[in-house]
Amino acid sequence: MRPLVFVNVAASVDGRITDWSRKQIRISCEEDMKRVDSLRAESDAVLVGIGTVLSDNPSLTIKSSELREIRTKAGKSPNPLRIVLDSKARTPLNAKVLSKDAKTLIVVSEAAEEERVEELRRRVEVAVLGKEKVDLNLLMKYLWKRGIERLMVEGGGKVISSFLREGLVDYLYVYIGGVVFGEGVSLAEGRIFPHAKLELLDVRKLGKGVLSEWKVLKVEEACNEQQS
Amino acid sequence: MRPLVFVNVAASVDGRITDWSRKQIRISCEEDMKRVDSLRAESDAVLVGIGTVLSDNPSLTIKSSELREIRTKAGKSPNPLRIVLDSKARTPLNAKVLSKDAKTLIVVSEAAEEERVEELRRRVEVAVLGKEKVDLNLLMKYLWKRGIERLMVEGGGKVISSFLREGLVDYLYVYIGGVVFGEGVSLAEGRIFPHAKLELLDVRKLGKGVLSEWKVLKVEEACNEQQS
Repeated sequence: MRPLVFVNVAASVDGRITDWSRKQIRISCEEDMKRVDSLRAESDAVLVGIGTVLSDNPSLTIKSSELREIRTKAGKSPNPLRIVLDSKARTPLNAKVLSKDAKTLIVVSEAAEEERVEELRRRVEVAVLGKEKVDLNLLMKYLWKRGIERLMVEGGGKVISSFLREGLVDYLYVYIGGVVFGEGVSLAEGRIFPHAKLELLDVRKLGKGVLSEWKVLKVEEACNEQQS
Repeated sequence: MRPLVFVNVAASVDGRITDWSRKQIRISCEEDMKRVDSLRAESDAVLVGIGTVLSDNPSLTIKSSELREIRTKAGKSPNPLRIVLDSKARTPLNAKVLSKDAKTLIVVSEAAEEERVEELRRRVEVAVLGKEKVDLNLLMKYLWKRGIERLMVEGGGKVISSFLREGLVDYLYVYIGGVVFGEGVSLAEGRIFPHAKLELLDVRKLGKGVLSEWKVLKVEEACNEQQS
């Protein structure tokens, strides 16, 4: 048993979540940001990689006070648990993700410096899972035991590739905005072998872009892959 | 005056036209291949870069005999002119794009070896346009004079980026298939500054994937780009 895992990501038409600055460019329009806020509100935890924390310093909290209230009335915390995949324990102590607005879990590996781990542990929950890198399968077990049933993965590209490679993604939501960068981090960065196969569930215009919803297939069902 | 230019490309959900093999993977389903064949049939010329010729060896002809007949009846050649952007004149003499099925124009730069250029010139039309690289603006003038009113650009990623960078694309058709590679050539490869801005014209399910149609904006009209 593991949490239901869905990835949400906004990208350019060429599939990039950043341009050459390697910082996130705002690709979503207002309509999509509301959708993402709702997705967060329906999640028990939201997860990002340390790269995203270092480049974008996101707070990963729910923006809408209304949505936070709905959670509170349902007996939940106002915000979902924030999770950072941080093998080497590099999360800066002033990162927004360590703020008091929500609980945070930093997941490190055994390769992290003891001292850094202790500094983080004085502030938030820390789990050591994996030798050199975080072991995602161990993480899934840890989260399941901890009561996390719905996990939202928000990137970056390396984290999304790792989850897909391990077969740990159930759904993928991609918002495509009307821009082409030609250079930058793609929404999936790191060879996925065998290729992740997806089934299209839905696609529609949203704001000035395209929202597509995909189910990740467990076996080779798709028609769309023979060497041409 | 220049030809109307549209780009057509099939990519993975992460915006890639190849995986790590750097060879084209068939991403389109049957429905999309028919659509692409029709687009070719409506074009006066189809263009690819030398990278695509070397890795995929496409014939760039119309597959449907029906569509070729319609062209012939309208007084056109059965197939559109095939154009290869080939700065250094590296097109192999046995490339399918040099076959007798259609006319071909190889566009080289002044940096190409004289001898290679002559070998190609004995077989097909060759134009020398630009010093080190092909000058796309000169090419547009050349094609317009030559009667090319509708030009279809089929890739690869570097060619698409170059056309967008020079502001020479009117429409972009992107078919997204249900697969994620995590590594490979993206549909636009090479920094586009300022970012190309697109307006979404249409999006729909096609076969097992998503077809989106974008108009390339000439000025900064899009809402979707402030540093977040």
